[in-house]
Amino acid sequence: MSPEPFPNLDRVIHEKARLAIVSALSATPSLTFTDLRNLLGMTDGNLTSHLRILQEAGLVALTKSAGEARPQTTCALTESGRTAFTHYLGHLEQIVSQFRKSSSAP
Amino acid sequence: MSPEPFPNLDRVIHEKARLAIVSALSATPSLTFTDLRNLLGMTDGNLTSHLRILQEAGLVALTKSAGEARPQTTCALTESGRTAFTHYLGHLEQIVSQFRKSSSAP
Repeated sequence: MSPEPFPNLDRVIHEKARLAIVSALSATPSLTFTDLRNLLGMTDGNLTSHLRILQEAGLVALTKSAGEARPQTTCALTESGRTAFTHYLGHLEQIVSQFRKSSSAP
Repeated sequence: MSPEPFPNLDRVIHEKARLAIVSALSATPSLTFTDLRNLLGMTDGNLTSHLRILQEAGLVALTKSAGEARPQTTCALTESGRTAFTHYLGHLEQIVSQFRKSSSAP
């Protein structure tokens, strides 16, 4: 019904836990599920549900390694995930520069 | 249970609709509820519920004008709301500068 404020701010990335996941993955080609979970201090269930949302949005690719005693899931940003994160950072930058001037100094 | 990623990123402000409200109020001493609603294109119910959360967090003050035919609610950032928004912008800036380098160019 209502036009969304900040339409450019990708809602999938903006959520705090997903922002942490995408930020972590942006700095590396890929991370295992376990490394990502330990890095962010998230529970398995919480990380799984956020990764699913990112995967459905096409931002993250999950790969299951087969043929090992303990199969691992590897998480990586897709090309479109990297692009979306770059755009997201650009929009944050705009917000900062737009409102820095008008907000009072600390 | 899990330590929160981006602990400095104020969860109350970070939510997209509330970020829009706080941004709008940061640029002005105060706005009427009606002006704020029209500016952001939000519904009455949506704006009311987000303002309540901001008010409970001490970030926004709501003042009802009495003695008029049609009483108006005026919305303003509190001092602590302005400070919190300034800090929030600082944290966004850190995220941008931290991850700009590691993310690929658009």
